[in-house]
Amino acid sequence: MMHLNLFLLGAGHHTAAWRHPDSAIERMGDISYYEDMARLAERGKLDAIFLADGQAATNVSDSPRWFLEPITTLTALSRATERIGLICTISSTFFTPFHAARLMASLDHISKGRTGWNVVTSMFDAEARNHGYESMPAHAERYARAEEFIDVVLRLWDSWADDARPLDRSGDYVRKDAVRQILHHGEHFLVDGPLTVPRPPQGHPVLFQAGASSEGRELAARRAEAIYAVAYDLPAAQAYYSDIKARVKAAGRTDPVPILPGLVTYVGSTEEEARRKQRELDELLPSEAALRQLGLYVGRDCSGWDLDAPVPALMPLEDFTGPKGRYATVLRIIETEKPTVRQLLGRLAAGGGHCTMIGTPESIADRMEHWYRNGGADGFNLMPPALHSSVGDFIDHVVPVLQQRGLFRREYEHDTLRGHLGLARPPRS
Amino acid sequence: MMHLNLFLLGAGHHTAAWRHPDSAIERMGDISYYEDMARLAERGKLDAIFLADGQAATNVSDSPRWFLEPITTLTALSRATERIGLICTISSTFFTPFHAARLMASLDHISKGRTGWNVVTSMFDAEARNHGYESMPAHAERYARAEEFIDVVLRLWDSWADDARPLDRSGDYVRKDAVRQILHHGEHFLVDGPLTVPRPPQGHPVLFQAGASSEGRELAARRAEAIYAVAYDLPAAQAYYSDIKARVKAAGRTDPVPILPGLVTYVGSTEEEARRKQRELDELLPSEAALRQLGLYVGRDCSGWDLDAPVPALMPLEDFTGPKGRYATVLRIIETEKPTVRQLLGRLAAGGGHCTMIGTPESIADRMEHWYRNGGADGFNLMPPALHSSVGDFIDHVVPVLQQRGLFRREYEHDTLRGHLGLARPPRS
Repeated sequence: MMHLNLFLLGAGHHTAAWRHPDSAIERMGDISYYEDMARLAERGKLDAIFLADGQAATNVSDSPRWFLEPITTLTALSRATERIGLICTISSTFFTPFHAARLMASLDHISKGRTGWNVVTSMFDAEARNHGYESMPAHAERYARAEEFIDVVLRLWDSWADDARPLDRSGDYVRKDAVRQILHHGEHFLVDGPLTVPRPPQGHPVLFQAGASSEGRELAARRAEAIYAVAYDLPAAQAYYSDIKARVKAAGRTDPVPILPGLVTYVGSTEEEARRKQRELDELLPSEAALRQLGLYVGRDCSGWDLDAPVPALMPLEDFTGPKGRYATVLRIIETEKPTVRQLLGRLAAGGGHCTMIGTPESIADRMEHWYRNGGADGFNLMPPALHSSVGDFIDHVVPVLQQRGLFRREYEHDTLRGHLGLARPPRS
Repeated sequence: MMHLNLFLLGAGHHTAAWRHPDSAIERMGDISYYEDMARLAERGKLDAIFLADGQAATNVSDSPRWFLEPITTLTALSRATERIGLICTISSTFFTPFHAARLMASLDHISKGRTGWNVVTSMFDAEARNHGYESMPAHAERYARAEEFIDVVLRLWDSWADDARPLDRSGDYVRKDAVRQILHHGEHFLVDGPLTVPRPPQGHPVLFQAGASSEGRELAARRAEAIYAVAYDLPAAQAYYSDIKARVKAAGRTDPVPILPGLVTYVGSTEEEARRKQRELDELLPSEAALRQLGLYVGRDCSGWDLDAPVPALMPLEDFTGPKGRYATVLRIIETEKPTVRQLLGRLAAGGGHCTMIGTPESIADRMEHWYRNGGADGFNLMPPALHSSVGDFIDHVVPVLQQRGLFRREYEHDTLRGHLGLARPPRS
């Protein structure tokens, strides 16, 4: 069975989605806006809601990227839903492992076993400068800290036995030998423990990661229980998928470690209607600012480009001296989609280098199935371009097709995120 | 009007409450247990729910003091209630100000302006050793850090203008001049800002503090918007009250700064029924352990003491060489209440040095009114000995008497905690 998570972000993953008359920008600070979408996703039997995070408000004028904080948001969503998982991004660079372990253990109790942890190491100096650092620690240093951080969090979750509380009113409230210190004294952290929260219902909330760099892939292979990926097309997805699965195996692990690439979808009852939905959002992009941004990506002045003409020829990747990753994505979009300038701006504005599928429910289900059956994905992290209309389009029209084909659950068979993902509950170590 | 907060802790403030057949120890990890009590408190029109916090699980065998984490718990409670305030304890010693500002701002949006912050500096080495310190920073150092921490949090809350988002789909999402960095570069913190969360509905969540030491009282006088106090009896309450009010005035402030002493109540339809409720809990105390604990407090072996005899004579305070504060409380309880050994153990097991009132609803209301009208209290922080029976006793029987006397609201007149407490919304500074 496929796994499907819903990645909620601002007014949608298309940066111009908030400008649409149907957007709910008046409700961005209203928790009921998020609750409505979580209930919709639960109606579609999705595995989980996923929230990203960052520790610095940048480009606040551009879009409603910043508002509520994820752990509080997901706690509220846990009370508006009953079965769907709740995945929270928490940075190992800016929290102490004790706070992280405690917040997630508490959410796992409140949600009765539906918590996931997307561990990130963060990237930007602007984030570091909100938490006492002059600049971001180096990449290798962040990953070394992350691995120690994960170890400490897992040990804190295991500091209470599952059956620590005998619930005998005449004896001890907790069995004396059932709660232990961890006495961690490492390179980055000093943590005596035990945690202030009994062992989470899932044992450990499910550990997600999105490793792209070599350090990230190695950490994912050793530690992650499920993985987010960025894949522009099936060959890229297959390359990542087979690399990670091989590394997981080399690490001596036998658990499934589902891999979920990001997926942007525009769904219509006809191809034309789907394309119209995409065009409607693309046309909301303020073209002057978008061309300025594109100029930074491709290293030349784009301000005079005709929005409705094909993209002018660009220099080959090997001659480009700026950041290569994003430039490679631009070249690939041009090569495979032959877009107009406006279409290119729209593609970059919605999910960037992630896969985009546009079409009828059947044609999108075809392509998802193709990825799923051909070693590209164990499921997808859905990145709806416009909230909540794109969520409804997917849940109401694509999910039923996947269900008819036996690719996706019709009912929840488990009560925990770990159950939805087919992951075993870890014994206390 | 009086202010009343409900301080929820474990199975109640009496350490033996969990042993009572009516306790809900089976539900300590179930958020609905806390939701039920929050709804009960809201039915009684209380100002707020208050949660304490600590960063180390000590004496886990004794009582269910440790379970859910407060910010996640209060977020869940915000979705089960509509008007009651939600006060979260957050330590300035163990969080970064950015995390603290962000979590509380998010809860203030989710709860639509019902958040309070009880700022503490924490006390125990065991807490420090969960967050990277070898031992707890010195008292003066903690208070210096706390004051800088509060400054940074307030400035982060003010980093967005109230009207930053014009909600105009054709312009900028946020007015460019409406969000600013704070560029704090102080003794303890480097924080550039701005916050990732728009300005909270209350401007600033309400700042509570419980200063007892001289540094604590000074910080409270300069910064706190409402204050928790520990007062064993009215003279002690009056001394604290007049000292703090004088310090607030000396700091040039004119806002009301309500002072709320802790209050343990045993309510019965007769004096005898109230005393029976107290006795029922006291008799659940494991006497051997309680006598051992008492031995530590009074510096002598109490193991042979007769539980139902009067407390043997103790040495005067000036001759005692151990911690004087708690010893003074013990002497005072003996002097004023002439308790048996069991009664003394019971008093120490429920709220310790806090005021305890036992009796009918009318007689408890009399004493609360007496404190309120005689410069002892602007209200109380209710510390029910047994959950949730003591909460029901107070809400159903004492609150109506206070309402009849015009001492307590019959309906909420405001939607925010700031409104309930009669505090103005701070303009952005």
